[in-house]
Amino acid sequence: MSSATKSELQETRDGVEIELTQFMREQSSYLLSISPELHPVSSALSSFLLDSGKRLRPLFAYAGIKSAGGSLTPAKTKAISSLELLQACALIHDDLMDGSDTRRGKPSIHRHFESIHVQDALEGFAPAYGLASAVLLGDLALVWSNQLLNTSGISSDELRRVMPIFDEMRVELMAGQFLDIHEQTQKNTDLARSMTIARYKSGKYTIQRPLHFGASLAGASEELINSYTNYGIPLGEAFQLRDDLLGVFGDPSVTGKPAGDDLREGKRTALIAITMDRATNGQLKDLKSNFGDPNLTSEQVNLLQEIIISTGAASHIESMIKELTDTSLAALKHGGITPVGINLLTELAILATNRKI
Amino acid sequence: MSSATKSELQETRDGVEIELTQFMREQSSYLLSISPELHPVSSALSSFLLDSGKRLRPLFAYAGIKSAGGSLTPAKTKAISSLELLQACALIHDDLMDGSDTRRGKPSIHRHFESIHVQDALEGFAPAYGLASAVLLGDLALVWSNQLLNTSGISSDELRRVMPIFDEMRVELMAGQFLDIHEQTQKNTDLARSMTIARYKSGKYTIQRPLHFGASLAGASEELINSYTNYGIPLGEAFQLRDDLLGVFGDPSVTGKPAGDDLREGKRTALIAITMDRATNGQLKDLKSNFGDPNLTSEQVNLLQEIIISTGAASHIESMIKELTDTSLAALKHGGITPVGINLLTELAILATNRKI
Repeated sequence: MSSATKSELQETRDGVEIELTQFMREQSSYLLSISPELHPVSSALSSFLLDSGKRLRPLFAYAGIKSAGGSLTPAKTKAISSLELLQACALIHDDLMDGSDTRRGKPSIHRHFESIHVQDALEGFAPAYGLASAVLLGDLALVWSNQLLNTSGISSDELRRVMPIFDEMRVELMAGQFLDIHEQTQKNTDLARSMTIARYKSGKYTIQRPLHFGASLAGASEELINSYTNYGIPLGEAFQLRDDLLGVFGDPSVTGKPAGDDLREGKRTALIAITMDRATNGQLKDLKSNFGDPNLTSEQVNLLQEIIISTGAASHIESMIKELTDTSLAALKHGGITPVGINLLTELAILATNRKI
Repeated sequence: MSSATKSELQETRDGVEIELTQFMREQSSYLLSISPELHPVSSALSSFLLDSGKRLRPLFAYAGIKSAGGSLTPAKTKAISSLELLQACALIHDDLMDGSDTRRGKPSIHRHFESIHVQDALEGFAPAYGLASAVLLGDLALVWSNQLLNTSGISSDELRRVMPIFDEMRVELMAGQFLDIHEQTQKNTDLARSMTIARYKSGKYTIQRPLHFGASLAGASEELINSYTNYGIPLGEAFQLRDDLLGVFGDPSVTGKPAGDDLREGKRTALIAITMDRATNGQLKDLKSNFGDPNLTSEQVNLLQEIIISTGAASHIESMIKELTDTSLAALKHGGITPVGINLLTELAILATNRKI
């Protein structure tokens, strides 16, 4: 990939960071004007939003704008930044639902407020305060996402075009999240069901809809918008499969999550579905007695990792990622996407699937 | 009040019901097109939204439209109905945060999904499934609220005018909710803090902003919109104070909540703040040892109710409600509100403050 494309993406990331910083500064002082007691809310959300993050969804939206022949104005930078606030809601609520202690190497929001409760020796039950805070901070991020888009300064026409996509992506996100938590309650793993979840949680939410979001801002034709589907859907699945691998094999110092976190959570991913399908009876016994145990030792994590490798499930997922990424890149040759768009989308496909975090 | 005004409000309520039913029908089939596993989501949300509810916020928005000289079109009926979906989010998340078992005489959403988990003998921990479902169903209601407004068919200009109000009311709601849960963690009750919470949770969210919402749809001047503030703020406080009384003295067969629910929850309301201020040492001892105990017997509830009455706190709150309502009705005489608007706002002031549910 050209370093020009890389620095174009970095510039966009920087632009998003600036807009988010500015928005959070305004909203924080608004909250403080209501009550000084809201300081922990704005401070926790600012730190959650601004400290890190790959900014993948705004970058895909940016690629949607450019690949439809549009350009990035300050208003459009604000508009695509709104996707990061939506993602903040998703992560805060996700961590609460999964009972995750950490996010990006720091306490998750519910744990953070639980700690405030303990440190300040507040009345009542600290975990209940953590839960309520995470629910409300996620809700607030969801509302702010919408507000940043509404006040971005894009034209009424642009807003009208982008809103149906924004609505649909948010509904798909919540639907995908529900299917995901529901999947964890099933007796058996199932590859087809896992792939449907991957499609909604990642294919559509992370890639296809952000692309559509950007393309519709640039006034792309329906035909061009539809052509992103053949790129976005397989790439999104590949993205989710990479997530599944990182959830089991990711390096904690890079992911900011404990090693083998998905194993402790008992997350029914495509990786686990394939492992279960291929496991010997002995391996199945080890899997069933360890998978989903929140207190797994690192030896037990190692044992499960070895089973996932020795069944060939891990390498099968790697080849699925490669195949899906190739399919998605091949789709770029059709559909009237600008050359600069093709460069961006190729670079982003690598970013989304060949990552350590 | 004239029966014409009453039937006008009933017609509006019916119109809102029809739009919500239609919207939920469309969204339910959309969810089912993603996966049949989403059936419990659409069915629980439809039943939560359609089975009951006072529809106060859409009615105030309607009064906002009429009192600014506008009229109710089908598009505007959809637009004001969106406020009920926002309220559904608030209630679902509120019940989860408060750990409430019931809402309108039926299980709250987290308890409903917890029961599904038990009945269907699903894998995992039933309360965790209940929690996650309530988080996601609330999120979905929040997104749908926005979607119903976006797709209502109001003009781009109307949408542009109403959006800043919609954004602000949602931020105020979440801020008010946070202040409320934070208040429950404080060592002492405080009347001023309780009144700030009442102002944000109810004054603004339930009354003032819905009025502004409707008035801005009707293209009201900034001056007219501001004039609602003097009606809305005191009335909202009166509304919240009525809520506080119902939370302690409400008839369970009417409220659909157990008797003395707020006492079990230990809800720090203005009513409790005044009771604490006025209690004798003996009463204070009884209050401290019983208030906030989730397992209160009906005898203990009676004891607390008697203290709240004998300190004069209950009747003081009644007179505050009367005074605030009078202030709010007096404000109607100024500010260019249409005569039909004055009738509606007068009737709604009674509905909001003189209710059993």
